[in-house]
Amino acid sequence: MFTHHVTSNKSRARRGTLVTPHGAIETPCFMPIATRGVVKTLSSEDLKNLGASIILSNTYHLYLRPGLDVLKSAGGLHPFMAWPGPLLTDSGGYQVFSLAKMRKITEEGALFASHIDGSRHLLTPELSMQIQQIIGSDIIMVLDECTPADSTAEYLRDSVSRTTRWAERSKKEFEKGRDVSFNPGAKLFGIVQGGTDEEMRKRHAADLIAIGFDGYAIGGLSVGETFDDACRIVEAVDGVLPEDKPRYFMGGAKPEEIVAYVRRGIDMFDCVLPTRNARHGQLYRFVHDDLTRPDFYEVVHITNEKWKQDFSQVSPELPNISHAYLRHLFTIEEMLACRLATLINIRFYIELMSKIRAGIESGEV
Amino acid sequence: MFTHHVTSNKSRARRGTLVTPHGAIETPCFMPIATRGVVKTLSSEDLKNLGASIILSNTYHLYLRPGLDVLKSAGGLHPFMAWPGPLLTDSGGYQVFSLAKMRKITEEGALFASHIDGSRHLLTPELSMQIQQIIGSDIIMVLDECTPADSTAEYLRDSVSRTTRWAERSKKEFEKGRDVSFNPGAKLFGIVQGGTDEEMRKRHAADLIAIGFDGYAIGGLSVGETFDDACRIVEAVDGVLPEDKPRYFMGGAKPEEIVAYVRRGIDMFDCVLPTRNARHGQLYRFVHDDLTRPDFYEVVHITNEKWKQDFSQVSPELPNISHAYLRHLFTIEEMLACRLATLINIRFYIELMSKIRAGIESGEV
Repeated sequence: MFTHHVTSNKSRARRGTLVTPHGAIETPCFMPIATRGVVKTLSSEDLKNLGASIILSNTYHLYLRPGLDVLKSAGGLHPFMAWPGPLLTDSGGYQVFSLAKMRKITEEGALFASHIDGSRHLLTPELSMQIQQIIGSDIIMVLDECTPADSTAEYLRDSVSRTTRWAERSKKEFEKGRDVSFNPGAKLFGIVQGGTDEEMRKRHAADLIAIGFDGYAIGGLSVGETFDDACRIVEAVDGVLPEDKPRYFMGGAKPEEIVAYVRRGIDMFDCVLPTRNARHGQLYRFVHDDLTRPDFYEVVHITNEKWKQDFSQVSPELPNISHAYLRHLFTIEEMLACRLATLINIRFYIELMSKIRAGIESGEV
Repeated sequence: MFTHHVTSNKSRARRGTLVTPHGAIETPCFMPIATRGVVKTLSSEDLKNLGASIILSNTYHLYLRPGLDVLKSAGGLHPFMAWPGPLLTDSGGYQVFSLAKMRKITEEGALFASHIDGSRHLLTPELSMQIQQIIGSDIIMVLDECTPADSTAEYLRDSVSRTTRWAERSKKEFEKGRDVSFNPGAKLFGIVQGGTDEEMRKRHAADLIAIGFDGYAIGGLSVGETFDDACRIVEAVDGVLPEDKPRYFMGGAKPEEIVAYVRRGIDMFDCVLPTRNARHGQLYRFVHDDLTRPDFYEVVHITNEKWKQDFSQVSPELPNISHAYLRHLFTIEEMLACRLATLINIRFYIELMSKIRAGIESGEV
């Protein structure tokens, strides 16, 4: 499933190919976030045109809307949203942590109140697998608890060992439902937790490896810890994870952070920044070819007065759109503005990964 | 400029070609509304792909934002919004009537307070021409006063004769600025007012014809009068207007009303319904080929529960989008929903005009 072609001679960066039932993905890769079965403002056709090789969607959101009845009768999310390529789904653990109005974690699962209508749901590892198999994901994530950055050592230890037990239950349920699911070739990833405690992270990684997964994610980062802490944790886990399985960094990462994590052995990323920042008029743009320079890109604030009469092209992605016109669209709060900025930023992240892959091959990253 | 090819043998419907500096338009035609230099949710590229032959923008809105400084340094609206085709601009008269917080009509012009920041502006016939020449319109509209539906006969008479004087001033200013404008080949249209009073309408049309314009619009309809009244007025004016000039019905019109007005001699339409209704999840769809049947189309309310599990294609315009998926996008208030619905509805109106033109040629409309 995962072929690890080469490791950079300058860092721990890896070039690989990840094969899924809906196609192969060259890694390191970036997954645009289609939270509710849509990357905000873009159609699946747009995503194909942008060169997206895999997208991410969310169990928690899809479970609430459109709901399992619709997904089941649609034959899964792929036909529902007309996305022909690989699809990864988060297990819902992080959304219960970040979105739900109320949550209570027990051994059984996560009891939460929907952020939409307050209705109560118990998300168990088993239910998360069942939902993801109805979604028809190519890469299914185990249910985990994302521990808050300020957790006590004791809470963290209890939570991590529960996440291990949930991972075991996830794997069992995943295998039980696999053959009758919409996507029998789906793969299951474990999620390493343990906060910013290196030893706990390593131990948890080892526990998950003992259970055995098709890939390993590092969860519970980008939740308020420093960048140095995140790097330290990625390095610690890198030392434990098997070389022949893909590693996925879950959560937001700025372009320079993606480069840093790639150089520490990470293969897969999702990130809400390109899409969210697009909707606030912040556009990513390459400045230098050397990705190890801290200033290899810039963020253009297109609503700034300085672009008012700049009629030069805003992005190679949009041949006919000037800075001034895009600024005008943001000024009048036109939806098209969000769409155009999203096209620019998703394309930037996809190109970033392509530059990173070339850089690993040529020994520059 | 306008070639009138044929009149239907079943009605007063006319097939023509209108030539502008940015291309020829087959009439009867529909003009998608790009109020502020953008058809909501769509790029100019999208409009080209939809087959739009001409678009409409608004003097009042563009004057306020992006403003004359930007339009001037951009070289007009065509390059600013990257729209290569014909462009018509409304004079601002209707927006002063419908949008401005405060307005006072004097012989000099329309004093109004901006709906954005309350700033005061005096829109004179001369200023309206100057703005439209900076915009670089292909078809410029004279400044008129759109009289409220409940105006007294006396107010109406005074208003119409002022609109005639404004039309004279508009023409004078238009000719003065023509050669130094961004679009020296632009054409000027007069606007027939007079409420629902047939005699006043005919007199006003005759007064405008005496001044002489490249085309004639019927303004001040779709402001609350009945459909029968509107038809009566269109018929009255049709009897006076020259056969060799294009006629433009200003304001909203449902599909069956467009057919009715075409059959009464109208060549050009703008209408906010396809775009506005799209954003409320109302989709236009053909049901029968015979456009003279009242039920030749239907309006689908896509947010309705009945589409929840309908996975059939929602429109030939969108090969991969099902009813259920578009409904889901509306349910989660996703911007893409508005865009997709707008693509469907604009395409419907463009196709409606194409069917109408074919119907005139074959003698069925």
